Amino acid sequence: MDVAIIMGSDSDWSVVKKAYDMLNKFNVDVEVTVASAHRTPYKVQEFVNSCDAQDVKVFIAAAGCAAHLAGVVASYTTRPVIGVPIAAEPLKGWDSLLSTVQMPSGVPVATMAINGAKNAAIFALEILAVKNENLKLKLDDYRAGMVQEVEKKAKKIANELQSK
Amino acid sequence: MDVAIIMGSDSDWSVVKKAYDMLNKFNVDVEVTVASAHRTPYKVQEFVNSCDAQDVKVFIAAAGCAAHLAGVVASYTTRPVIGVPIAAEPLKGWDSLLSTVQMPSGVPVATMAINGAKNAAIFALEILAVKNENLKLKLDDYRAGMVQEVEKKAKKIANELQSK
Amino acid sequence: MDVAIIMGSDSDWSVVKKAYDMLNKFNVDVEVTVASAHRTPYKVQEFVNSCDAQDVKVFIAAAGCAAHLAGVVASYTTRPVIGVPIAAEPLKGWDSLLSTVQMPSGVPVATMAINGAKNAAIFALEILAVKNENLKLKLDDYRAGMVQEVEKKAKKIANELQSK
Amino acid sequence: MDVAIIMGSDSDWSVVKKAYDMLNKFNVDVEVTVASAHRTPYKVQEFVNSCDAQDVKVFIAAAGCAAHLAGVVASYTTRPVIGVPIAAEPLKGWDSLLSTVQMPSGVPVATMAINGAKNAAIFALEILAVKNENLKLKLDDYRAGMVQEVEKKAKKIANELQSK
Amino acid sequence: MDVAIIMGSDSDWSVVKKAYDMLNKFNVDVEVTVASAHRTPYKVQEFVNSCDAQDVKVFIAAAGCAAHLAGVVASYTTRPVIGVPIAAEPLKGWDSLLSTVQMPSGVPVATMAINGAKNAAIFALEILAVKNENLKLKLDDYRAGMVQEVEKKAKKIANELQSK
Amino acid sequence: MDVAIIMGSDSDWSVVKKAYDMLNKFNVDVEVTVASAHRTPYKVQEFVNSCDAQDVKVFIAAAGCAAHLAGVVASYTTRPVIGVPIAAEPLKGWDSLLSTVQMPSGVPVATMAINGAKNAAIFALEILAVKNENLKLKLDDYRAGMVQEVEKKAKKIANELQSK
Amino acid sequence: MDVAIIMGSDSDWSVVKKAYDMLNKFNVDVEVTVASAHRTPYKVQEFVNSCDAQDVKVFIAAAGCAAHLAGVVASYTTRPVIGVPIAAEPLKGWDSLLSTVQMPSGVPVATMAINGAKNAAIFALEILAVKNENLKLKLDDYRAGMVQEVEKKAKKIANELQSK
Amino acid sequence: MDVAIIMGSDSDWSVVKKAYDMLNKFNVDVEVTVASAHRTPYKVQEFVNSCDAQDVKVFIAAAGCAAHLAGVVASYTTRPVIGVPIAAEPLKGWDSLLSTVQMPSGVPVATMAINGAKNAAIFALEILAVKNENLKLKLDDYRAGMVQEVEKKAKKIANELQSK
Repeated sequence: MDVAIIMGSDSDWSVVKKAYDMLNKFNVDVEVTVASAHRTPYKVQEFVNSCDAQDVKVFIAAAGCAAHLAGVVASYTTRPVIGVPIAAEPLKGWDSLLSTVQMPSGVPVATMAINGAKNAAIFALEILAVKNENLKLKLDDYRAGMVQEVEKKAKKIANELQSK
Repeated sequence: MDVAIIMGSDSDWSVVKKAYDMLNKFNVDVEVTVASAHRTPYKVQEFVNSCDAQDVKVFIAAAGCAAHLAGVVASYTTRPVIGVPIAAEPLKGWDSLLSTVQMPSGVPVATMAINGAKNAAIFALEILAVKNENLKLKLDDYRAGMVQEVEKKAKKIANELQSK
Repeated sequence: MDVAIIMGSDSDWSVVKKAYDMLNKFNVDVEVTVASAHRTPYKVQEFVNSCDAQDVKVFIAAAGCAAHLAGVVASYTTRPVIGVPIAAEPLKGWDSLLSTVQMPSGVPVATMAINGAKNAAIFALEILAVKNENLKLKLDDYRAGMVQEVEKKAKKIANELQSK
Repeated sequence: MDVAIIMGSDSDWSVVKKAYDMLNKFNVDVEVTVASAHRTPYKVQEFVNSCDAQDVKVFIAAAGCAAHLAGVVASYTTRPVIGVPIAAEPLKGWDSLLSTVQMPSGVPVATMAINGAKNAAIFALEILAVKNENLKLKLDDYRAGMVQEVEKKAKKIANELQSK
Repeated sequence: MDVAIIMGSDSDWSVVKKAYDMLNKFNVDVEVTVASAHRTPYKVQEFVNSCDAQDVKVFIAAAGCAAHLAGVVASYTTRPVIGVPIAAEPLKGWDSLLSTVQMPSGVPVATMAINGAKNAAIFALEILAVKNENLKLKLDDYRAGMVQEVEKKAKKIANELQSK
Repeated sequence: MDVAIIMGSDSDWSVVKKAYDMLNKFNVDVEVTVASAHRTPYKVQEFVNSCDAQDVKVFIAAAGCAAHLAGVVASYTTRPVIGVPIAAEPLKGWDSLLSTVQMPSGVPVATMAINGAKNAAIFALEILAVKNENLKLKLDDYRAGMVQEVEKKAKKIANELQSK
Repeated sequence: MDVAIIMGSDSDWSVVKKAYDMLNKFNVDVEVTVASAHRTPYKVQEFVNSCDAQDVKVFIAAAGCAAHLAGVVASYTTRPVIGVPIAAEPLKGWDSLLSTVQMPSGVPVATMAINGAKNAAIFALEILAVKNENLKLKLDDYRAGMVQEVEKKAKKIANELQSK
Repeated sequence: MDVAIIMGSDSDWSVVKKAYDMLNKFNVDVEVTVASAHRTPYKVQEFVNSCDAQDVKVFIAAAGCAAHLAGVVASYTTRPVIGVPIAAEPLKGWDSLLSTVQMPSGVPVATMAINGAKNAAIFALEILAVKNENLKLKLDDYRAGMVQEVEKKAKKIANELQSK
């Protein structure tokens, strides 16, 4: 197992799925679970310990509001933990962002943009690529693909303007 | 033991001490410890479980920045947990406040004002007074004392203005 | 009467009802009223005094915008007051949260998350359970139930992923 | 008595004094008291009622943090109430501003800038001037004086630049 | 003419109309115009000067975003100016509130809640009532009416709960 | 005259001086005045009109709090107006920034960073350089100089680390 | 070519189009492209360098979230760069505004209101008008047109009120 | 070379040094430079490209205000980039945090707490430890050391309380 994804509530799945799909696209082994830092603290602890035993390399934790999940996962492991603040109502993610990113000295959480699940997956891939040259090449390809997509959009607008 | 106080860092002690002093003043049994939700997750868990075994009635948890401590304490007990967000630099407590108060449904943390350690103690006393009529009377006396203090301050300013 | 719920406007009822339903579910006596700190100050005062006379143990006060209601209730009683900031437009609860939580020294309000009416009820139950062992056991059961609910959600997603 | 000033704490006096001095400068009768919406709710009520009985025309209320004072004063009178949010630590007045200004429909508080005690006095004078033509002329003079002060400052800088 | 209402854009009318309707209800003479501090600075100046010549007693100015209108009106008159910050997109009134309320020393704007047009009218009435005893009595009646409205709402919810 | 600088208060001079010094360094004609949008509205109007008559090409306006100055200047001219929000206490420039930048459609203010007076001068130079090739070359030189300064700082730290 | 418009994503086009339409209306030559500071850094660099080679006079850059685009454009040119923060979800432009406006000393970005694409175009025209007297006259006409539009709106509301 | 540290200004060094010291403590090869995304864009590009050529595994980028540096570094490499928002005046890091964390889809920056340079180093170590078992053990030891430090602090306070 390479990456473990943990989310605080199944209502976060529509956002978190983008991380799962991205990791799948790169053929990385990934496990997904729902566990709440507050409602199921023992489950979080056991899940992280069991992942560590299975030599999971990177954790992705997504939660909203008082988003303690990424911090709690990080408290149980020294593997890299990537946090995804979810944009829950009514504060739109201000609370989740600050709860995830403002970690005290000693226990870092690598925080992504609010709802940035896809970037969490890309960052996990970048970590794994540090020891996997093949994955590094795939990431470079993916980046090159983004350049072409942007170019296509630029052309679409150029065409739209010329056809006026 | 009636009340357990837990703080995330000994640097919070200058603020948290006000809670301790207030509880002492009302002759309530109180235990104090330092434990970090992120650096010492197992200590937090053991401390809360041990407090529950000793029938501690109320918890006060104080922390700054991504202040997960009160939420983590609340995840291990169904006793009332009072959270005190500490006004750490550079965000002055905006992060601690949101991290403490925005708890998800099911696991409440009773949040006080930023740095509101004294009020945390008073609120703990109000909880204990629900089953201790004598303590209720003392709290009423304390409140009455505040009225007199305000009156004194009003008079001081009245005198200052008259002597002009 | 164990718990009194007071809200600033009947438009808050859809949120506040969650507190009422929760308390009912635990067979706790609860009274509900609408009273505004600004439009009906005397009614608030009389309501709190009458609740105190009937030995109400805990107050829950919910209000939006310049949410003074919980603070005003707390000014009339030394019983625990739980504040629920309502997410009114256009500031989405930033104003209600700060108005409710930033109480001065001496008069605490135990603040819940914005719109956190259900947690207000749970916290009220936790307070009552300090002197009611049976209620404490019910709360422990309720918490255990949450663990199972989270487990169900984790399985649902696991199944969804396996069936792909 | 024309104007009554009420502040939540004597620590607000260094700010509030600017309102008092300004009103004195315009020879307006003014009464000052310290009363806390939370610690001395009955005193606030009695003070406002007694001011109304003495036909006080305008109220100025200054408070910090969860600044309920102006709103509570306004709940007891239909005389104009001017609110001055105090810039208390650690939130620098964000809490006081929102608690003072975001009043619900029906009970207005005329809110000044954070720490804007001098402007509260000027606004009180503008209100009194609605029925006092002489005061209106004095305010016009005062405004004209400000023009000259700004002109002096502009000249000082012009001189400083020329002498280079 | 007693009150002049000025708004920055006709798109603010749906909010500002509440001020107009309220003033009409109390039979107060009121003039309404649209004028922008930025697009029509000379019109604002002329309108305020002409209102002053007609002895208008109170100004209400409503604007959104960088809401300079109330401040600009106040710069041309020493009559009381009431500011209504409009909750424009995308910042929901944070910008309008700060632009309206944070006036420098010397030129006050009495700021209402975001979108608080109705309260602006009530506050204008409170100002006019300082020299009009009859209007003061009407305001007291209006306040009394609010008490009954709240009472009705409380009863509606009490009935709803009893019928369960 | 090429550039006119206007500031709301002489207390802003320590910040604004950086704009003046920068413009002097590039030998650009610049006039400085103090004028308040609120205390001296007619002076602002006359100053802008007189600058327009003298064919001033760019305006720089600096103000704090409810910083209306740049917007008011822009209301009187179609020359480019650059706004510098000043970081006044207690809100540290949040109010000045929003008051300066959130201009309505039709009347733009080119807003710099809070206290960004030096950048205001550079931007004014960039505008003037659109019709002055020589000035454009000087700006390119200045930019090149910044590269060398950064290089020097990088070397200083490199040396500090090597000497360890 | 007079003006180059660059946007971070084609999803910004509905906002940015207002700048393009405005510039077209004034018969100014304008080029539009899509380029992302993060996905296509080399394209941004080449685009800016190529614009500089074609003697483009003004750049308009629009982006949302961590809106680095305007700053990156400004790092490659000493021509005036106008930044338009886009109001992306979930933070509604708070992130884009701060990322665009808070530029360090030396490299200014002239920031418009959030979504202020039309004002970006007007400001670009004001810059070009510094060396084009004819354009200056057109801008003065445009401003005069706004006065008439406001007047029309004022009349519409006056009529609506009279017909009641 | 394992890690490259890049900071926007040498004034950030007092904060960034904590990252350097931490990496040194773990005997990791690290290179440090000063380069500004805005003042020296070509230097940033060349530095990142040269680091990639030397097979640097992880980048740490620290900057304040409109903190584009981490995003710009990430635009040139698919190696993991860790961003440290610096708490510059006057906005205390709100601007740097949002500018660093709110990266668009495709190009992640792993954001640490404001001024969290030490955690940036620990996170870099966690990444390197994914392919270095020995480093993983050292990190586990370091974490264990933190537990003992917290324990010491808890004892210090316990002693202080007992000696009363």
